[in-house]
Amino acid sequence: MFRYAVTYIARTGPAQRQFKENAMKISARNVFEGTITALVDGKVNAEVEVTTPGGDRIVAIVTEGSVAALGLAVGKPAIAYVKAPWVMVLAGDGGVKFSARNQLAGVVDSVQKGAVNSDVAIKLTGGSLVHAVITNEAVMELGLKPGVPACALIKASHVVLGVPA
Amino acid sequence: MFRYAVTYIARTGPAQRQFKENAMKISARNVFEGTITALVDGKVNAEVEVTTPGGDRIVAIVTEGSVAALGLAVGKPAIAYVKAPWVMVLAGDGGVKFSARNQLAGVVDSVQKGAVNSDVAIKLTGGSLVHAVITNEAVMELGLKPGVPACALIKASHVVLGVPA
Amino acid sequence: MFRYAVTYIARTGPAQRQFKENAMKISARNVFEGTITALVDGKVNAEVEVTTPGGDRIVAIVTEGSVAALGLAVGKPAIAYVKAPWVMVLAGDGGVKFSARNQLAGVVDSVQKGAVNSDVAIKLTGGSLVHAVITNEAVMELGLKPGVPACALIKASHVVLGVPA
Repeated sequence: MFRYAVTYIARTGPAQRQFKENAMKISARNVFEGTITALVDGKVNAEVEVTTPGGDRIVAIVTEGSVAALGLAVGKPAIAYVKAPWVMVLAGDGGVKFSARNQLAGVVDSVQKGAVNSDVAIKLTGGSLVHAVITNEAVMELGLKPGVPACALIKASHVVLGVPA
Repeated sequence: MFRYAVTYIARTGPAQRQFKENAMKISARNVFEGTITALVDGKVNAEVEVTTPGGDRIVAIVTEGSVAALGLAVGKPAIAYVKAPWVMVLAGDGGVKFSARNQLAGVVDSVQKGAVNSDVAIKLTGGSLVHAVITNEAVMELGLKPGVPACALIKASHVVLGVPA
Repeated sequence: MFRYAVTYIARTGPAQRQFKENAMKISARNVFEGTITALVDGKVNAEVEVTTPGGDRIVAIVTEGSVAALGLAVGKPAIAYVKAPWVMVLAGDGGVKFSARNQLAGVVDSVQKGAVNSDVAIKLTGGSLVHAVITNEAVMELGLKPGVPACALIKASHVVLGVPA
């Protein structure tokens, strides 16, 4: 459990630890721990907003079946998980509007280059770190390096939600 | 055709071969061949469950347009495809419940380490192998190695279905 | 801006440049620039078809919220974005029908091999290049090399749409 907590902090920076008893570990590099701040029901799917203690917001689309099974409700704790290869990165000074529900603005915190891909970490205004795996080619084209403004683009349907069991 | 069959067996272990005449090949590393055992219609999307001969079940969400075009129905043969980078891996002794529709419990069969990522194969109780591509960092954090219990988490919307033409 | 335009041409081949004033850059390797040629409204989601000047078509599923926010309508310019790791590749002479909405037939243009994965570029009949990141193992199994017919399979829900701001 201690190990999990340490991992979590390393990933997303300062944040309260609502799940400190949690011994379940997951391979996803992006873990947004927070509270459900909005829940819009649909016929089949629901849109669920999770806000971190620092104020970063991420929206997930899950089935109404999951809403019932997990007991999702405004005010309850929840964690949003996103694999790093599912995150797109935007840079530049505008000109295009996108359909993706999550467009998280921040500043590049680090770029770890591999042979083909890089892990780009973007620090959001609320302190959360978002990791994106993108090609080295894209890192160059977008001019990504620490300190540069960038935006993480995540489809709401690519977010998995978790709640304390 | 022979080549496809061999490939398939190598990927998912013992299973009957309903598509042995099939010469179409696909790049997805996860191929679950089986029979449709449940189909829940919605307004726009349908939830389709495919069960392998060994008893492993995977649920896909496809449009009602695909249900009609492919003639999907309970009792008919179908194949579920999932790219390995879309699979999350869970380990540990609980504490979190997840929204993902497919939470396939099994035991780690192999871990093939690359420079940055590893291919983790999880053997399900029905004999199917599920491949997940996750970071080496996650492999360490989760303590994944052959023999360790683990769970493959797959969003139903990330599953592509195929049927014999 | 010039830089973006050059990048775009390098990625998708000959195409008109409706967004030449566009200084926003995105990490996605697949950028289909064109015009909206169909828009089917649903309760929650809409299906939007974008056709490139060369005649290649790609379908995206976006929320009705995005349709309103972006002002999507038939005849308007739009760009469809897809990350290369989300593209599956098919080869062979048939035998299976798939549920994925986008099944883009073409010819392999190039295969760039990495340590574990390859970037396979497929040239569609309209001139667009589609990039797929798949395992080297799959490249071998499918016999992919320049000149070989292949098909890019993309779920409509994995396509992000952009419009001029």
